[in-house]
Amino acid sequence: MNQAREIRLVSRPDGLPTVDDFALVDVELPAPGAGQLLVRNTFVSVDPYMRGRMSDAPSYVAPFELGKVLDGGAVGVVESSRDARFPVGTNVLHSLGWRTHAVGPAQAFRPIDVVGVSPSAYLGVLGMPGFTAYVGLFVIDDVKPKETVFISSAAGAVGSIAGQLAKLRGARVVGSTRSKDSAKKLQDDLHFDDVIVIDPGHVAQQLRNAAPTGIDFYFDNVGGEQLEAALAVLKDHGRVSVCGMIATYCEPVPGPRNIIAIVQKRLKMQGFIVSDHMARNAEFVHEVAPAVAAGKITGPETFVDGLDKAPAAFVSLFAPGGHIGKLLVRL
Amino acid sequence: MNQAREIRLVSRPDGLPTVDDFALVDVELPAPGAGQLLVRNTFVSVDPYMRGRMSDAPSYVAPFELGKVLDGGAVGVVESSRDARFPVGTNVLHSLGWRTHAVGPAQAFRPIDVVGVSPSAYLGVLGMPGFTAYVGLFVIDDVKPKETVFISSAAGAVGSIAGQLAKLRGARVVGSTRSKDSAKKLQDDLHFDDVIVIDPGHVAQQLRNAAPTGIDFYFDNVGGEQLEAALAVLKDHGRVSVCGMIATYCEPVPGPRNIIAIVQKRLKMQGFIVSDHMARNAEFVHEVAPAVAAGKITGPETFVDGLDKAPAAFVSLFAPGGHIGKLLVRL
Repeated sequence: MNQAREIRLVSRPDGLPTVDDFALVDVELPAPGAGQLLVRNTFVSVDPYMRGRMSDAPSYVAPFELGKVLDGGAVGVVESSRDARFPVGTNVLHSLGWRTHAVGPAQAFRPIDVVGVSPSAYLGVLGMPGFTAYVGLFVIDDVKPKETVFISSAAGAVGSIAGQLAKLRGARVVGSTRSKDSAKKLQDDLHFDDVIVIDPGHVAQQLRNAAPTGIDFYFDNVGGEQLEAALAVLKDHGRVSVCGMIATYCEPVPGPRNIIAIVQKRLKMQGFIVSDHMARNAEFVHEVAPAVAAGKITGPETFVDGLDKAPAAFVSLFAPGGHIGKLLVRL
Repeated sequence: MNQAREIRLVSRPDGLPTVDDFALVDVELPAPGAGQLLVRNTFVSVDPYMRGRMSDAPSYVAPFELGKVLDGGAVGVVESSRDARFPVGTNVLHSLGWRTHAVGPAQAFRPIDVVGVSPSAYLGVLGMPGFTAYVGLFVIDDVKPKETVFISSAAGAVGSIAGQLAKLRGARVVGSTRSKDSAKKLQDDLHFDDVIVIDPGHVAQQLRNAAPTGIDFYFDNVGGEQLEAALAVLKDHGRVSVCGMIATYCEPVPGPRNIIAIVQKRLKMQGFIVSDHMARNAEFVHEVAPAVAAGKITGPETFVDGLDKAPAAFVSLFAPGGHIGKLLVRL
């Protein structure tokens, strides 16, 4: 048996999550059985979409079970192997979540190439967040050079990559964030053309100031007032790829009062879930990995150390931040 | 000079329009000049979209001017001609609106073929309403056989044709209306599979009852609660063509509270304006005119007699009706 620790959901958040919704628990893991691996996690992913799974309303992914460990993206190193294709020391990606160690069948793990890249990149720029950005921009839509693109939650794991991918395509990119520090980093380090620091109640005017001739495309990560502002500032025939609506995850938010703009401006709005598009993942890696290696795209990362910090890190996703890019627990 | 009467907008409605927003005025029309026609109108169109033009907010069509005649679709007969291509007696379609007679340059008029079809059809099933239905179903979307289609305001000029076109394509069609009489006509005469008589506050449940396995496509004419219900009942990867939002024309209506469904169910929502798609009009007429001639599609019409009745007819569009199909003033 192996000593391990894991984080369980102990209550379903009502509105904003708190650290009391989680418990850190010591467990004993069995030795891996035939065809199984024991993996020591090195990085565990902290993602906004997990909030949805904490409610038991029907959704596109099954809810977390109360009293059970939280699944989610993680990378680790094989410590003990009963599958010859995964020698001890292999770096792997998996979705067994918030725990120090995981035991499971070999097919639950994917080997990753960590030459010249941190394993954590597979949870960020080369992982689901980067691919989500790619799908929203180039699979659901086809953002073009010289278009003006607005990306909400631009300091987030998805938004920070989406902005850079759109820039690489030749678009003018306006981001939004709730933190002045993040805004500065987005402009200085990630070369966003303009960044709005959200002033609640005035977002439409802020967006109009940043994009006086209107926006062609909105990458929606948040819903709420920012979606309403985007609908107001989109040009005729504008498009919206709806990736998430973090504003609505914790509390009911009124729908956009100006939704009539969809007709008046002939807008197209399309929601997507990245896992529907895995057939395009190879194309994404093929296109983006070289840009990452060449330093044309950076996947900003913020780390907290120790599994016990995962709940607080998760809670921080729903408050004005300051952290930029992918939020990770480093073990 | 010719004696004529016309209806002018004398005040911009605040919320629901009233007959007092309009005035019937006697005018003298000049004799047609070189290249001009004098047309005696036979039918004048009464359309919900005109409400938008009665406000002076910026929109996709210029607002009506106060004190001026209301433009809009009309058909008539040439009474006096200074263009050899339009002999006296020619039936023509034009957009000079709510007046007994119109004088204008020949290019403002289009001759119509009235053999076997009433001139009024060019304001309905073979005109803008029919083409709008066609665009929403088959240009913006591509409704397929066996899909379940929901059409709001199904007794209206657009909805009544949209339902029949979708049926002809092999879809199962659920309509909505605010009138029991209209519901009966839609089922008995136009062969809708099911029709909801709107019960405010319970539309989602009504729609679920009518489409227990969900809807694939929603043709939105109204916005408001029906849009919210459709978002709730759409299947994964469902689509919405947004043609109009009559619920929002007269008063602000909250946006759909469940707009997060766009992500959860990967929905596509697209607004359109029929005039953007005139390049497809010939294809529409080619496809639909034979179906009309063969009696496979009927363009229901409701008439009021006399130009003085146009304002009351327009006001009636915003109240639970009983009239079905295209609302026309017959002169």
